[in-house]
Amino acid sequence: MLAAFSDAATLRSALAFEAELARAEAAEGLIDTETAETIAVLCATITIDPAKLAEEAALAGTLAIPLVARLRAALSGEAAKVLHKGATSQDVADTVLACQIRAASSLLDRDLTRITAALATHARRHAETPAIGRTLLQDALPIGFGLRIAHWQAGVAEAASRLRSEVETGATLQFGGAAGSRAGLAGKSAAVSARLAAALNLPDAPPWHARRGGIAGIATALAIAIGALGKMARDVSLLAQNGIGEAREPAIPGRGGSSAMAHKRNPTGCQIALSASLRAPGLAAGILAGLPAEQERGLGGWQAEGPALAELFLLAAGAADAMAAVAEGLEIDEAAIARNLAAAGLGSDIGESAGLVATLLAQDDRGTDDAFRSEQ
Amino acid sequence: MLAAFSDAATLRSALAFEAELARAEAAEGLIDTETAETIAVLCATITIDPAKLAEEAALAGTLAIPLVARLRAALSGEAAKVLHKGATSQDVADTVLACQIRAASSLLDRDLTRITAALATHARRHAETPAIGRTLLQDALPIGFGLRIAHWQAGVAEAASRLRSEVETGATLQFGGAAGSRAGLAGKSAAVSARLAAALNLPDAPPWHARRGGIAGIATALAIAIGALGKMARDVSLLAQNGIGEAREPAIPGRGGSSAMAHKRNPTGCQIALSASLRAPGLAAGILAGLPAEQERGLGGWQAEGPALAELFLLAAGAADAMAAVAEGLEIDEAAIARNLAAAGLGSDIGESAGLVATLLAQDDRGTDDAFRSEQ
Amino acid sequence: MLAAFSDAATLRSALAFEAELARAEAAEGLIDTETAETIAVLCATITIDPAKLAEEAALAGTLAIPLVARLRAALSGEAAKVLHKGATSQDVADTVLACQIRAASSLLDRDLTRITAALATHARRHAETPAIGRTLLQDALPIGFGLRIAHWQAGVAEAASRLRSEVETGATLQFGGAAGSRAGLAGKSAAVSARLAAALNLPDAPPWHARRGGIAGIATALAIAIGALGKMARDVSLLAQNGIGEAREPAIPGRGGSSAMAHKRNPTGCQIALSASLRAPGLAAGILAGLPAEQERGLGGWQAEGPALAELFLLAAGAADAMAAVAEGLEIDEAAIARNLAAAGLGSDIGESAGLVATLLAQDDRGTDDAFRSEQ
Amino acid sequence: MLAAFSDAATLRSALAFEAELARAEAAEGLIDTETAETIAVLCATITIDPAKLAEEAALAGTLAIPLVARLRAALSGEAAKVLHKGATSQDVADTVLACQIRAASSLLDRDLTRITAALATHARRHAETPAIGRTLLQDALPIGFGLRIAHWQAGVAEAASRLRSEVETGATLQFGGAAGSRAGLAGKSAAVSARLAAALNLPDAPPWHARRGGIAGIATALAIAIGALGKMARDVSLLAQNGIGEAREPAIPGRGGSSAMAHKRNPTGCQIALSASLRAPGLAAGILAGLPAEQERGLGGWQAEGPALAELFLLAAGAADAMAAVAEGLEIDEAAIARNLAAAGLGSDIGESAGLVATLLAQDDRGTDDAFRSEQ
Repeated sequence: MLAAFSDAATLRSALAFEAELARAEAAEGLIDTETAETIAVLCATITIDPAKLAEEAALAGTLAIPLVARLRAALSGEAAKVLHKGATSQDVADTVLACQIRAASSLLDRDLTRITAALATHARRHAETPAIGRTLLQDALPIGFGLRIAHWQAGVAEAASRLRSEVETGATLQFGGAAGSRAGLAGKSAAVSARLAAALNLPDAPPWHARRGGIAGIATALAIAIGALGKMARDVSLLAQNGIGEAREPAIPGRGGSSAMAHKRNPTGCQIALSASLRAPGLAAGILAGLPAEQERGLGGWQAEGPALAELFLLAAGAADAMAAVAEGLEIDEAAIARNLAAAGLGSDIGESAGLVATLLAQDDRGTDDAFRSEQ
Repeated sequence: MLAAFSDAATLRSALAFEAELARAEAAEGLIDTETAETIAVLCATITIDPAKLAEEAALAGTLAIPLVARLRAALSGEAAKVLHKGATSQDVADTVLACQIRAASSLLDRDLTRITAALATHARRHAETPAIGRTLLQDALPIGFGLRIAHWQAGVAEAASRLRSEVETGATLQFGGAAGSRAGLAGKSAAVSARLAAALNLPDAPPWHARRGGIAGIATALAIAIGALGKMARDVSLLAQNGIGEAREPAIPGRGGSSAMAHKRNPTGCQIALSASLRAPGLAAGILAGLPAEQERGLGGWQAEGPALAELFLLAAGAADAMAAVAEGLEIDEAAIARNLAAAGLGSDIGESAGLVATLLAQDDRGTDDAFRSEQ
Repeated sequence: MLAAFSDAATLRSALAFEAELARAEAAEGLIDTETAETIAVLCATITIDPAKLAEEAALAGTLAIPLVARLRAALSGEAAKVLHKGATSQDVADTVLACQIRAASSLLDRDLTRITAALATHARRHAETPAIGRTLLQDALPIGFGLRIAHWQAGVAEAASRLRSEVETGATLQFGGAAGSRAGLAGKSAAVSARLAAALNLPDAPPWHARRGGIAGIATALAIAIGALGKMARDVSLLAQNGIGEAREPAIPGRGGSSAMAHKRNPTGCQIALSASLRAPGLAAGILAGLPAEQERGLGGWQAEGPALAELFLLAAGAADAMAAVAEGLEIDEAAIARNLAAAGLGSDIGESAGLVATLLAQDDRGTDDAFRSEQ
Repeated sequence: MLAAFSDAATLRSALAFEAELARAEAAEGLIDTETAETIAVLCATITIDPAKLAEEAALAGTLAIPLVARLRAALSGEAAKVLHKGATSQDVADTVLACQIRAASSLLDRDLTRITAALATHARRHAETPAIGRTLLQDALPIGFGLRIAHWQAGVAEAASRLRSEVETGATLQFGGAAGSRAGLAGKSAAVSARLAAALNLPDAPPWHARRGGIAGIATALAIAIGALGKMARDVSLLAQNGIGEAREPAIPGRGGSSAMAHKRNPTGCQIALSASLRAPGLAAGILAGLPAEQERGLGGWQAEGPALAELFLLAAGAADAMAAVAEGLEIDEAAIARNLAAAGLGSDIGESAGLVATLLAQDDRGTDDAFRSEQ
């Protein structure tokens, strides 16, 4: 996930943008095919220190300025002139962001699927295990132990589904030119845009320089996903308390120890997810706050999104990775469950818990195939 | 909108829940039909002071406790006993919230549609009016003046679409009973739930007491919608500046004056939307922060949602109402537009602005019919 | 607390502003003394429906416009002319807010002091009671039970101290006139400001129309105070869990029951504080987001502060009231404490807990007198 | 600023903690002096790859675990045994954080002072330059141009003062041991704590493992400081608009260009500060949200603070650095100021602007000496 947002990945995507833009423009007869290939070859072969470029970009306020300057310096004549034709800095920045969002979402989705698959298995196995249900942190009435887990599963599955949908509509090509009017392209901008999008493996779309709802939708979907992981983490950490002891994280070498207390087994995986849950809402709020962008390109708002989105993906990835390990290795102590249920003295009628488990698990929109595969 | 979240509306929905629950249980043979009607009649006729009840609810921590106590006191025998059967306080609270969300969304959607319709008209009319585009608050290159407006329209339309979708999946019946296991219903809970949902005009769903992603999705969709209104407000207020003067809010009696300066015409509609844009992200963040709810019913998290969601709807409604008036009465000064364009000295090539306007407007998912109706 | 932010209180303070402004200007020879008294008498006697005025204010975008219009209509000649002289709408709005902040802070401080006093007593009493300390939700090593309580106390005391300090510097007179230049006062503005401040019982200050750091400091101090109450609530609710049972909220009639489970005693006081803790950060963030106000008077930012600050005070008051009851009636179960300690099997060396309790309690900046009074 | 929060700086402070802890314990007779020196020498000379250690720390959930393990492996006998005596992981983490906060605040304060000094000079110079004041983004009445700048100055000075004060009280030694009871130190913990604090150049304090109001106070003070910089940035960017043109950022090589429009001079310094202003509130909210920490050491809350605080300092430093350049090189166009004033047609009475400038500048709590020095 760090790699997806690294300076090197950013540079790679930015070079791909310039190369494919030239090719798309050549295909539409706007520039010479040979010139386009000269540009594309340079983009594929040029060696640029990503860290150095990032530094210049920080000063310039955008990556494209120093990048285009270097490419132009390495080109000559017509190629130097038509490089970046019809595009603006933010076209590069936003398209790169869209590529990174897709790469990052795909990585994240993998871990979320590990979690939903593992939880589905636990939920089914313990669907009818009577356990005390707890509301407002007090013993309430019995439930099937698996019902609690099925809710974790459903929460993560729903969040994963929302995220996929927001990424699908929100992470698209940005191509609008200096003021978003697609000027200088001789009426061929729609065709260039379609070709460029296809080459970069992104959906085509009209420019969205100052219309950032799609990015905000992705950011909030990430925050909801992190919250769903936090819900699971909250419960596991509460179940693992001394005096409760119904479930706990698996022991993982190097994780969860204490520098002062050898006897401890800390819920460190849960800690990671809960920590992420505390940070994510504010990061999402920072992106929402930037929505009232100024005119054709905002001053400050969209520039704040990149680092916040990257942080949200990193938090989500950290939490998902940690909770995948927790989900797959979750240690459930049936004796403790039975003991606590008996201590509550509230009987063992779990109502229709088992049916609800089945209903909740059936809602996962990747359906039974995934669940099936995960249990092989 | 205030009415949708009033104590009176809350009480009405809560009484409907108890009445329809009794009827649904009678239809499934769980309680006597006559008893159910006794309960339903009481719910339809009882007089309760909503403010007094709200006060007791604040002390009790939930509305259902004092409400059920009053109903029970007014009933006797079997009816008193079976009232609220299989339900818990949060079932009432969340179902009431779902009803309010649907009522509020529907009201809001009406104003958002007024806005998108009015903006579509302006955007088309000025699609080819050359104007200076501005990026980073500086003159950039010319655009069609309508392109800016089409982006406002698309931003609001997209946000309205997201909100409808989140409401559809997130505002559903809550019916789970004390610990979410649907106990005490003799295996008939799914049927009771389906009947109850239908009677209350809500989608049926498994309980979501401690799985709050759906509510968070609605909250963040509201924040994005408010941000889309804020984007339009930001631009209108910038365009209305002395020395720019390309567009301004319509004059509305009683609005936008100054207690000290008679010459002023303040962009007060924009102020309302911008103010809402500043508050909404934090309100949404507060709801996101509650996602890691404890066990079968959280302590603090879901209880924080109601007032924050109500506030978000009120802010959205205030902003939408204000911006609907701005959109419908927007005064566009073509002479100022031309003057500023000339002063920029950057020509008048608006590129493919007109085509982009058409593309953006065509994306509104309620399609041409709505747009058509609005222009009649 | 509701009263402090009511429409009626707002109106009262606004009328006081206009009355005392006239008097201060008369005292400096800027207007006629008799005219000033005519204005002051009207302000003291006029009957205005606060709700109706609030409605007009919402349309106008500010309270002062309809208020001044009504006063002016009830006056004639010179008095009508010099009313509100040298002032602007925001002068009224911000000065009213400063008055409300001071009234609200004072109310809140009373409840916070109840809490710190009660907690100090518990902390001292149990300073040497060996109990298991818990870190990362796991048994760690023994502590004095009172040490945990002393930390609650110190957290609340520190937060109360920060709040007092921020209110002292941030809630001051606002008096700057239309553009903040104090024009039209013949060089006497400093003297008028000093008199007006004294009459309204506020510190004098230069105008702060678009310099809102003081308000933000108050808002964040409130959020920190709410968080300190939330810390105590978190711990009490964890201690009250079945299977732990070391402490719990007092039973309060009408509070903490369940509509479905008669056996429950829910930590409803803690719920209120935890709910407030979830909402407060976002409300404070909304105020912080408004700091980059435009020019001499911002568009949207400061207008968003009033409702958010009122909400923060209401949340703080609700949480403080609830936790004062919890603090004063906290039921501590020494047998359970001993049982859990023994079960941990980690000895009973509480280190220097008792000394730390004394150190922590001694830090309360209202010192031993307050603590003394509270224990009488 | 990056260096202050680097893995290398973290490691250096952590090693200093372990070295000085051993020395302090030796000075109090708790461990052997020679043993303490063995530890201290090791801490001063050991070579550890900070990145590798950071990776292990991420897995362990805390830095101290792998660090202490390495040190212990490099020691033997008594030294291995008494290393880290009486301390816990969080003691190291929080003390390191306190050191970093102090280093970072000091760096930041330097840039804030550059800004206040430069702004004071501009404010005085233009105190009596008549300019149109603007409220709600509309021409209002004339002010002295320097009055606007004096408000920027006062906002930054006040924020810097609050930050110094919060750092002074909040960034202190953390030393509590495993459960915060300071066990195992034979009653000498207060003396050890005092010595350790002195050696690390931090104020001594009782432990604050789960009482995080001080950190929250620092975080919110940073957010307010960033907002004060954002206020200045907002105004400069508005003043620099084409059609207004009263002031603009200095031209800085490599900054503010456009990849598509050679004519542009973008307010990139302002962009950095405005971007920071959008992100800071949510980052602060994330820290506020963690205040209700669990028991003696929270699960997730304090662990979320480090990265959020570091990000806040980086944003503040970036904004302060950018705005220091803007403040020092601010280009003020008196002709444009006069032109806009004339166009407003509202006269040129600037009221008591000059006196207010003097009053505002006099409030800077580092007083006239600083201001004096800066103008030499």
